[in-house]
Amino acid sequence: MLSKNQIKRITALKQKKTRNELKLFIAEGKKVIQELVDAGFTIVEIYTTNADISFSSSLYTTLISEEDLKKITCLSNANDCLAIVEMPSFKKPKTTGLILALDAIRDPGNLGTIIRLADWFGIEDIVCSEDTAEVFNPKVVQASMGSISRVNVHYTNLYNFFHEIQLPIYGAFMDGENVYQQKLPKNAVLVIGNEANGISDQLEKCIQKRISIPRFGKLQLTESLNAATATAIMLSEFKRNG
Amino acid sequence: MLSKNQIKRITALKQKKTRNELKLFIAEGKKVIQELVDAGFTIVEIYTTNADISFSSSLYTTLISEEDLKKITCLSNANDCLAIVEMPSFKKPKTTGLILALDAIRDPGNLGTIIRLADWFGIEDIVCSEDTAEVFNPKVVQASMGSISRVNVHYTNLYNFFHEIQLPIYGAFMDGENVYQQKLPKNAVLVIGNEANGISDQLEKCIQKRISIPRFGKLQLTESLNAATATAIMLSEFKRNG
Repeated sequence: MLSKNQIKRITALKQKKTRNELKLFIAEGKKVIQELVDAGFTIVEIYTTNADISFSSSLYTTLISEEDLKKITCLSNANDCLAIVEMPSFKKPKTTGLILALDAIRDPGNLGTIIRLADWFGIEDIVCSEDTAEVFNPKVVQASMGSISRVNVHYTNLYNFFHEIQLPIYGAFMDGENVYQQKLPKNAVLVIGNEANGISDQLEKCIQKRISIPRFGKLQLTESLNAATATAIMLSEFKRNG
Repeated sequence: MLSKNQIKRITALKQKKTRNELKLFIAEGKKVIQELVDAGFTIVEIYTTNADISFSSSLYTTLISEEDLKKITCLSNANDCLAIVEMPSFKKPKTTGLILALDAIRDPGNLGTIIRLADWFGIEDIVCSEDTAEVFNPKVVQASMGSISRVNVHYTNLYNFFHEIQLPIYGAFMDGENVYQQKLPKNAVLVIGNEANGISDQLEKCIQKRISIPRFGKLQLTESLNAATATAIMLSEFKRNG
């Protein structure tokens, strides 16, 4: 049985402040944990309700009750294992290839889905504005399905980043040029804006090419695509002729 | 103040069984409700905490406290209004154009996102297997952002539907032909499978063309794209040359 102190110590990692102080985060589910192990992440502790669970490398696991797991899980339906993992130090972003830049993506589920998409499309670097959701938020870790083990997620001042990088900067807008009619380069930055407000005015000035996914529905309503589905289509367009 | 009975009657609509008996569903937020009004849905009741709220057609609204709204909302963060709406009777699906078929999409958020995508890409009909999430589930209504007012969502036995329809049937698989290299027809059925298991064995036999979104990441892991992001890319491919 977990002691009150242990529970307190683990659940404290649901707070960003504690995660950053301790440089630790929570990952749940065998698949996600195994992918982090394979990618060389340091697993500090594993708690499981499943006595038969095993991982490719020999990790010490602590058997706990379902009741205890319920107390420490970040999920509404707990998996059968939860790990405490050391935060990696992400390498500096590359300056070639396709780089995804996220301007204030706030929803953790969206960020996780976008990381998973980046992984699928072979994007190695995501550069986020400082007000984007945090990559080690448990909801992001879960929605990324282990892709955080393969994609580097950086946080920086995007305005400065755009001024330093020597690549053409494309931005997804509602009123840009039809993305299907563009010859898209292999080396570029693609900027995706906030769920409600799009790309901020300050960053908009740094963008050389405004691109859009055309709307085919009859009504020309202002409603946009969800940030993650728009990213899916944009990445697909950049990569389909690669 | 809402009476206990009123609260009971409204919250009963969170259950599929009650929705189907009463042919009513819940929609929340001014934008979603307004879109349903515009599309000719019958609004039975509106509860709001905002005395200044107004809709394009004159609807009777009941002013309630935030406390009462919290008791009836289906959202974790309640909006300022909640409507009870009559279920429409969807027209029979067309037999031309692009028809989206969903085989056991279980997650309400995914279904809502897919309906919103269909709306964007001008898809008029989604045909769902009977075990797909229910379109009038409050989470679906919310994630669709009002798109259920423009997209017809049908539930049927897909096996029979596929045998009756005179259109080529395309299915999204992990091991199909590269979708980027296909000449895709304007009139077709596109089948998207269950989040975990893909398209069922029985339906797989009805599919004439297996298509895939190629993976660009270095590792050839079995992990697939999320059902909604895969649908986004597939719909984009069917429509981009239209």
